[in-house]
Amino acid sequence: MGADKIGYLGPIGTFTEQAMACFFAGKDFFGVPYGDIPALIRSVSDGHITCAVVPAENSVEGSVNVTLDLLLSEEGLLITGEVVLPVMHHLLARQGLRSFKKILSHPHALAQCRGFIDRRFPTAVKEATASTAEAARLVSACGEPWAAIGTEEAAAHYGLEVVIRAVQDYADNETRFVVIGTQPVPPTGRDKTSLAFSLVHDRPGALHGALGEFADRGINLTKIESRPARRSIGYYVFFADCEGHREDELLAAAIEAVKRRSTYFKILGSYPRWEGRRC
Amino acid sequence: MGADKIGYLGPIGTFTEQAMACFFAGKDFFGVPYGDIPALIRSVSDGHITCAVVPAENSVEGSVNVTLDLLLSEEGLLITGEVVLPVMHHLLARQGLRSFKKILSHPHALAQCRGFIDRRFPTAVKEATASTAEAARLVSACGEPWAAIGTEEAAAHYGLEVVIRAVQDYADNETRFVVIGTQPVPPTGRDKTSLAFSLVHDRPGALHGALGEFADRGINLTKIESRPARRSIGYYVFFADCEGHREDELLAAAIEAVKRRSTYFKILGSYPRWEGRRC
Repeated sequence: MGADKIGYLGPIGTFTEQAMACFFAGKDFFGVPYGDIPALIRSVSDGHITCAVVPAENSVEGSVNVTLDLLLSEEGLLITGEVVLPVMHHLLARQGLRSFKKILSHPHALAQCRGFIDRRFPTAVKEATASTAEAARLVSACGEPWAAIGTEEAAAHYGLEVVIRAVQDYADNETRFVVIGTQPVPPTGRDKTSLAFSLVHDRPGALHGALGEFADRGINLTKIESRPARRSIGYYVFFADCEGHREDELLAAAIEAVKRRSTYFKILGSYPRWEGRRC
Repeated sequence: MGADKIGYLGPIGTFTEQAMACFFAGKDFFGVPYGDIPALIRSVSDGHITCAVVPAENSVEGSVNVTLDLLLSEEGLLITGEVVLPVMHHLLARQGLRSFKKILSHPHALAQCRGFIDRRFPTAVKEATASTAEAARLVSACGEPWAAIGTEEAAAHYGLEVVIRAVQDYADNETRFVVIGTQPVPPTGRDKTSLAFSLVHDRPGALHGALGEFADRGINLTKIESRPARRSIGYYVFFADCEGHREDELLAAAIEAVKRRSTYFKILGSYPRWEGRRC
C-alpha cells in the first residue's frame, strides 16, 4: 500500500492546498493539484485519486456550485469530511518593493481586502486573476512594481516576500472546504449530514413542511440553500446540512419523511463535523 | 435631464452588459463598465450612477456573495429589478482558425462547456481567466492558436469570429441578474420581494418557524439561502425571495411577523418579477 493520492483545487499555494494539509495532517498522503473542479471530482469517480478537497462556503477561489452539481450528477460520490480555516490574505511582492502600481488577486480576495488596499495603496490599480496563486505567479514573472494578495505558501512557491500580513478587512472571515470520496464514514457521535432534495414546484409551504420534519425531531439545520436545478431558474434543488449521522435513529426518520415529500432526494454524505482543531 | 448613467460589471462584452441592455431597452441611458462589484455598488451609494446591474444566480462571472454582503452593509440601497437571460456560450477565435491548443474562459464557463470541449477539442488545454470577456481579449491579443468561450458582444468588441455557436452543455441554463438602485419601486401586481434576516443561532426549528409565517399566509418563496454572517461560519444570514410586494397586505403581515422572530432584519427591495420578455 502506497501513500494515498489526494486531489485538490490547485495551483500549488491555494487555500485549498492548506485545507488538505490540515485535514490529512499526520496521514500518509501526497497531494495532486487540479486546474478545475469537474476534472478533480471526476478523478475521484474514476479511481485515479482517493479523494478530493474543494472549497465550499465563502471561498476565495470560486463558487462551489459546480461541486454541488457534480455531487448530484455523478454516482457513488460522498462528502466524507469538512475543514474550516480562517481566511488569511497577505500582500506579496518581489523582494524590497514597497509601493505598487497594480495589485492582483482573485476578485473575491480583492473584495475581501478592499478597505486595506484603498487605505494603503489608493492609487494602485486592482486587477482580477483566476486564482490567488495565479496572481502570485504573475507578480513573480513580471518586472513591474506589482503586488499580489495570496497565501504564505504561494509566496514561498513563487519566491515572493510577504510585505504585509493579514490584510483582509474582516479578521474573523472563514472558508469551509469539503472532502469528497467514495467510502461512507461511520458515526463518530459528532457528525453532520448533507442532503439534496427537490419539492413540488411553486407550492407555498412545501419547504416549510419539509423543514418541519427536522424541527419536530429537534434536529438542527446548519445550512440551507436553494439552487436552480439544471432545467431553468424557478425549479430548485435544496441543499441542507443538519447535525447528526444518517444512521442516527431520529435523523434516519427525518430523512425518510423528507424523502416522501420530495420529487428528488439524495444523501450527499455523513461525516465528522469540524471541531476547529488547529493545523 | 441627461441620459441615466447605469453601471454594470464589465468589461465590455460580458453577460452583465447584455442583461443591462435588455432591462433598459428603449430607455435613455448609457452604460459604464466597472471592474469589480464593490466599486460598482458603492458608486450607486455615492450617486455617481443611477443604478447598477450585477449577476446573481448561476452566474458565469463570479458569485454574487459580495453583492449580498454590500446590500446588508451599505445604507439606502435596494434591489429595484431583475433580469433572467439564457446562458449562451460561443467558441470565439481569430478569423480562420479551426483547431486550438488552448481554450480560455472564466472557470464557470469552462465548467458549463466541459462536455463540448472534451468531445471536440480533447487535446486543448483549458485555462481559467477572470472573466469571459478577458478570455476574448487575451485570444485577440495573442498570436497563438487559442480560442475563448464568451459572448457575441465580446467577439464583436475584440474582432473575433464566432467559430461555433451555443457550446454550453445544458441548453436550458439561465443566469439571473439584479438591478440595484436607491428609489423604491411601486407595486405592479406581479412583484417579488427580497429579504435578509438572522435568527437565534443553533435553535432547531427557528427557520421552520420563520418560514411558517409565509406558508401560513399562502406566500410562495422563490429562493432561500443561508450565508455565513461576517462573524464566522455557524452564524447565518438567511436571504429569501418571495412573491408579492412589501406593500401587499398579507406580505406586510408576514414581514412584520418574521421581523419579530429575527435578531437582524432588512428588506432588500420589492420589484417587478422578470416575465421572460425577449430582448
